[in-house]
Amino acid sequence: MAQINEHFLQLPGAYLFSTIAAKVRDYRSRHPEAEVISLGIGDVTQPLVPAVVEALHAAADEMAGSATFRGYGPEQGYAFLREAIVQHDFEARGIPMSADEICINDGAKSDTGNFQELFGADARIAVTDPVYPVYVDSNAMGGRTGELLADGHWSKVVYLTGDAAGGFQPRLPEEPVDLIYLCYPNNPTGTVLTRAALQTWVDYARSHDAVILYDAAYEAYIQDAGIPRSIYEIPGAREVAAEFHSFSKTAGFTGLRCGYTVVPKELTAQTRDGRRVALHPLWVRRQSTKFNGASYLSQRAAAAVYTPEGRRQVEGNIAYYMRNAQKISDTLRQMGLEFFGGRNAPYLWVRTPQGMGSWQFFEAMLEATAVVCTPGVGFGPAGEGYVRLTAFGTHEQTDEALRRMVGWMTKK
Amino acid sequence: MAQINEHFLQLPGAYLFSTIAAKVRDYRSRHPEAEVISLGIGDVTQPLVPAVVEALHAAADEMAGSATFRGYGPEQGYAFLREAIVQHDFEARGIPMSADEICINDGAKSDTGNFQELFGADARIAVTDPVYPVYVDSNAMGGRTGELLADGHWSKVVYLTGDAAGGFQPRLPEEPVDLIYLCYPNNPTGTVLTRAALQTWVDYARSHDAVILYDAAYEAYIQDAGIPRSIYEIPGAREVAAEFHSFSKTAGFTGLRCGYTVVPKELTAQTRDGRRVALHPLWVRRQSTKFNGASYLSQRAAAAVYTPEGRRQVEGNIAYYMRNAQKISDTLRQMGLEFFGGRNAPYLWVRTPQGMGSWQFFEAMLEATAVVCTPGVGFGPAGEGYVRLTAFGTHEQTDEALRRMVGWMTKK
Repeated sequence: MAQINEHFLQLPGAYLFSTIAAKVRDYRSRHPEAEVISLGIGDVTQPLVPAVVEALHAAADEMAGSATFRGYGPEQGYAFLREAIVQHDFEARGIPMSADEICINDGAKSDTGNFQELFGADARIAVTDPVYPVYVDSNAMGGRTGELLADGHWSKVVYLTGDAAGGFQPRLPEEPVDLIYLCYPNNPTGTVLTRAALQTWVDYARSHDAVILYDAAYEAYIQDAGIPRSIYEIPGAREVAAEFHSFSKTAGFTGLRCGYTVVPKELTAQTRDGRRVALHPLWVRRQSTKFNGASYLSQRAAAAVYTPEGRRQVEGNIAYYMRNAQKISDTLRQMGLEFFGGRNAPYLWVRTPQGMGSWQFFEAMLEATAVVCTPGVGFGPAGEGYVRLTAFGTHEQTDEALRRMVGWMTKK
Repeated sequence: MAQINEHFLQLPGAYLFSTIAAKVRDYRSRHPEAEVISLGIGDVTQPLVPAVVEALHAAADEMAGSATFRGYGPEQGYAFLREAIVQHDFEARGIPMSADEICINDGAKSDTGNFQELFGADARIAVTDPVYPVYVDSNAMGGRTGELLADGHWSKVVYLTGDAAGGFQPRLPEEPVDLIYLCYPNNPTGTVLTRAALQTWVDYARSHDAVILYDAAYEAYIQDAGIPRSIYEIPGAREVAAEFHSFSKTAGFTGLRCGYTVVPKELTAQTRDGRRVALHPLWVRRQSTKFNGASYLSQRAAAAVYTPEGRRQVEGNIAYYMRNAQKISDTLRQMGLEFFGGRNAPYLWVRTPQGMGSWQFFEAMLEATAVVCTPGVGFGPAGEGYVRLTAFGTHEQTDEALRRMVGWMTKK
């Protein structure tokens, strides 16, 4: 008799962004004339840059010719892409890295979701609160999170809860943990970790034999030179951290699907009888069994991001979005609202005025201005009383949304 | 202290095709002048058809324009593709299907590997022997297969062992099983199930409350009208079967990555306390948490396979490969070798002469002819004494390989 994995049944049914979409549909049906602007979802709006588009056309032509057609690719991804990554994302920043340690994937979501499979069912996980839901939900499916409590926390998860007083910086856990998920620049708060702060996490992981899953999907948005763009800038990180990268936010690949995971050869975990086992061969075994590589076109497109033109063009897109972040920051300040992020990240984490709840503010702003934000409580209980705004809109939409928000807040 | 998932440690280290590649490399280093021809690996050689290439260029251009750029796609895939699939792969064959039941993926390997996550850790799995290794290895990682025995079987897996006398048809299990993996047309044996044979499996699953995971990746190669191309041609299958499709072998997408999984709304499994739970929402929850969709370009390319030109062109490619299958069949017959498949499948499953072992034959043929096959024992103990040949080569390579094989066998 086929029995289901009952861990699935405990998951909250509706995904945050589905609930938001339903509320927006309802609003539109009541206000068909309204021009709705979303500063909510983390999807990019600028088209692919010319260097990437050119690479896609060239790869499509290759696939059309007998002599140049490509079938199954190498298990860890094409060497031309892994070598470009090593050269530009690591060696150029003084970080030693081997192309063997790079595993190409179809986006950071897949790998941050799947990497937990390498660990035992009893692994104790630690996440920030608020947090990107994938880290928790994938472990819930794997049976590691215990019961879902009334406050939205899971009984077996250790929450590194942040708050305004502490600048939404994560606190070191007070109880033993095995896997620590860190995402910096952070989604949803837009905060970053300084080199010193990240060093304390690496030191913690080393002394407690924990593994850090470091999600660097937003590293391209870092403006300040002192902020680490990779955990491997920190001495000792290679033994305790895997790192997840994506071209989604760096180069607008949300529809194209390509990213990469770094699994250093020194990264190990333990067997029950105390032997150390390297995670790299385990991850390669996992991927070669349950994944068949990213599209050749996407891999060629990703390689184009590292060409001189590609880099310049992609930097132009990031500057485009960061101009939005600057404008949103200026406007929030002008409105007297407390917020985090927006300087080294495309996200702004805004405290709602007058102690309004996240959903209450979401609905009030939608009704009054037709502008959509993301309720902070959707990222965890510590997000209550906050909303997330994103810098991924067009300039025109962002300016118009801010104009409406100022009008509304002034009237309030 | 981070502990690994020890189930990974039991897996045989080297994947079959990696071992073959190493042996071929060794041969090449000893015979640098030899022109090696592979009839081994199941990768296609013909370029993408013009309709697909055109769709890739058009989609790349869309991604280059502000008004037509596409970011994150719908969670289950684009409606234009899901609707084309329903129309051509199901409704045109008289099979009712809703586009909601189609989940677009990046290839059948991912989903046949991941679908086991929906089931309890105690689920008893049944596979054919020989078998595509992904079904077993993914369950081994999930802890369902017990110990790896000396004969290559796993202690907790039920093997539906085939043999020449039974035409490599799978036998109904004699002990209770929960998940049954069936792949037809079969990889590696090239055999098919008649409608009556498939009906016995659907009936078995219904009466034993088992779920069938039906891998239809090679259905486009079926030539005989009486052979079912989908398990949903069989009455009662919607309640007991999920089905996996791929554009890899249908349309040469091994480098492009796109496929789809069918999860009918009626398909359920049980909770420990006896409630029935639909698998469709569980699978969508799994995918929306750990997957972010196939590339927009790949989805547009897949939709082009269903246009009138696309269908005609893709059928041309399949006919191209099946001409190889026919030639290989004719030659094997002429050489007096016993074999299966090659009529409704791109694979031929050949009994080695004079009781040679699979690897022994592989090495002897490589040394004598520089032609590569796949040792049958790599697909399971029941594959010992067989090798797999594929029809995916070019005509020129295939003819030359056959010429060499005939010369070698005549001398022997």
